[in-house]
Amino acid sequence: MANCIIAQSGGPTSVINSSVVGLVDANKDLKIFDKVYAGLNGIEGILNGNIIELSSFSDEEINSFRYTPSSGLGSCRYKMKKLEESTEEYDKLLEILKANDIKAFFYVGGNDSMDTTAKLGKYAKETGLDIKFIGIPKTIDNDLMYTDHTPGFGSAAKFIATTVLETYLDSSVYINNGIFIVETMGRDTGWLAASSALAKLNGKQVADFIYLPESAFDVDKFLHDVKLKFEEQNQVYIVVSEGIRTADGTFVAETSSQAHDKFGHAQLGGVGMYLKNLIIQSGITKRVKALELGVLQRCAMHCASSLDLEEAHQAGYEALKYANMGHSGYMVAIKRESNVPYSSSYFLVEADKIANNVKYFPKEWINEEGNGITEEAIEYLAPLVSSLPSILTQSPMPNFKVFNK
Amino acid sequence: MANCIIAQSGGPTSVINSSVVGLVDANKDLKIFDKVYAGLNGIEGILNGNIIELSSFSDEEINSFRYTPSSGLGSCRYKMKKLEESTEEYDKLLEILKANDIKAFFYVGGNDSMDTTAKLGKYAKETGLDIKFIGIPKTIDNDLMYTDHTPGFGSAAKFIATTVLETYLDSSVYINNGIFIVETMGRDTGWLAASSALAKLNGKQVADFIYLPESAFDVDKFLHDVKLKFEEQNQVYIVVSEGIRTADGTFVAETSSQAHDKFGHAQLGGVGMYLKNLIIQSGITKRVKALELGVLQRCAMHCASSLDLEEAHQAGYEALKYANMGHSGYMVAIKRESNVPYSSSYFLVEADKIANNVKYFPKEWINEEGNGITEEAIEYLAPLVSSLPSILTQSPMPNFKVFNK
Repeated sequence: MANCIIAQSGGPTSVINSSVVGLVDANKDLKIFDKVYAGLNGIEGILNGNIIELSSFSDEEINSFRYTPSSGLGSCRYKMKKLEESTEEYDKLLEILKANDIKAFFYVGGNDSMDTTAKLGKYAKETGLDIKFIGIPKTIDNDLMYTDHTPGFGSAAKFIATTVLETYLDSSVYINNGIFIVETMGRDTGWLAASSALAKLNGKQVADFIYLPESAFDVDKFLHDVKLKFEEQNQVYIVVSEGIRTADGTFVAETSSQAHDKFGHAQLGGVGMYLKNLIIQSGITKRVKALELGVLQRCAMHCASSLDLEEAHQAGYEALKYANMGHSGYMVAIKRESNVPYSSSYFLVEADKIANNVKYFPKEWINEEGNGITEEAIEYLAPLVSSLPSILTQSPMPNFKVFNK
Repeated sequence: MANCIIAQSGGPTSVINSSVVGLVDANKDLKIFDKVYAGLNGIEGILNGNIIELSSFSDEEINSFRYTPSSGLGSCRYKMKKLEESTEEYDKLLEILKANDIKAFFYVGGNDSMDTTAKLGKYAKETGLDIKFIGIPKTIDNDLMYTDHTPGFGSAAKFIATTVLETYLDSSVYINNGIFIVETMGRDTGWLAASSALAKLNGKQVADFIYLPESAFDVDKFLHDVKLKFEEQNQVYIVVSEGIRTADGTFVAETSSQAHDKFGHAQLGGVGMYLKNLIIQSGITKRVKALELGVLQRCAMHCASSLDLEEAHQAGYEALKYANMGHSGYMVAIKRESNVPYSSSYFLVEADKIANNVKYFPKEWINEEGNGITEEAIEYLAPLVSSLPSILTQSPMPNFKVFNK
């Protein structure tokens, strides 16, 4: 027997810890490894020797951790050097794994983490080391290729749809209402903004307009549409992705506060406020509110989707099984077997096919006007949003457990 | 037999419709009035003749309405003229009530609504009309005098405490974390910001600093405290009320976008962003995030407190009973009978004593440093935040019902 290790990377989600617990549970059931280690703060922490033994914690602690949002093992946005540039970090990491008798490494993350997983798997193989590297998908953005969807997305979608419905009601109480703009995350893809279409009152979608990065944003058409709708309804509800851009590819919210993260992605925000000012300046109305849902989209466990929690858990569970079968350099992916009733299965995709690739919201699921989504898109989204697990409603305040504090 | 009418006024809460259903249920049980009417959009709607018959809707519709956030009868911020200035609106309103054989009028609202209730009650009495006027408290701000707390506050407090805990985890995942600022509502009082103290991890409060309007805000001390804490923890979590002001009474967030509502209150917002910029400019760190919870605080039914929902319902129930006993010109208030286990009872307070009065967060519940609250305050707050009713977790998306659309 030998040991395995799991770590988390990139931005948090509500269900990322469930995947870790899925792996722990799989090892409890299948008794493949002696110990399940966790690296704190991803690759960065492991390189610093920050390793704990997950299998030593009580069932109660592990179960609390399962229903705790955000990366409870800590995260990192550490970008390893290219193999061609230097193998130093790779050698160091593999040394640490060898020293702990680790035969399988699991990384829960998005495209950048799958890049790391692929590189490590490749290097281990090249150097003749028998260590398996398996990626477990995680991102609220739902932008990983090949997998039907990503764990983390369903809960974010549910939080967005639910709060869109609630804030729609809040913005509708007066005789003379104004214009309400909700800004969702989604730097490159519109999956999160699109999920707002699930917010319905009396069977009718409450969002009048939904703008995605995949559809070129035209300011004049936007103001024209909003003006007409406001004249018609005396109220307009708008959902906008932070990443919308004009036909030439410029981000609409290219502001002075713009910065770039370590992977070179532009850090956005503030498009809601920008559109608010635009509407006011155009003279349509002064009663405009903009709400940025912000990080709540990726940590609102109090509004999680039980299917999302289950699938995140199962993805971790499957990862251990796949490693035990001898696979390495792959990511666990989800296949939708049936939509009604919903069912899914798991399979493997080469991690380097996931890395640095983006699954965009399909153009054919955007309406002709470029300001809404189709029924087909709603059929895809709806099953991913399911009820809240009853365990999350049993105490007044949640009992969270993390390992990185 | 005769009829009664209920209407809602002012800003919405998550539980304001529960009070309406409480009244409907009381009339079902006690059979006091023939019909329960609802005025849509408060006084403003009634003056326009927008009246529906609530008692004609099915039990299922009424039950959905009970668990729907925001003012489902519509609201208004209509300020009636002073009686001395003109009795025209008063006469018109009373005429409409008489025409519908209405013997009791119930107004769900905050201090401004109690002002209206008191004036109407006084005028009806003066003109010899036998119509009872009873106010039902509602405000997330918890700033009404005499009542132990207000329906609507517990659910807002729960949403704030829960999201503070979740965003604390989200802001703690890296080795080098930054400073996170959450801005709560609370123009004049700190009740909402204070409720963030209920957010605890491993028994320890996660907010490092909590700033309330009742404590003079000192920019230099703030930056000093934040700097020290950041050096100590490499992370700071700050909660700030939108209404904080300096020693001379100036709002910290007095910005160019400032406007005034119809009652002359300054409309605030943006203090979180202001403090964020202050911290960055002071050179403590550039990693600062500010999140404005916004209107979600008053409509997040998906995170409601069941005690709050129950008490809102009971306040409506009691209102009908009090009107039937012959009272008029009063507001139903809550008395805390016991803290552990929590129990409460209901009593009446003259509506004009509530009107235009503000219950501030007690100075003795603020710590000496002016940046946190005491154990006594936490003991007051804790029982008001209770678990989510299971009815709200049974479907993937909520089934809301409103009457104003």
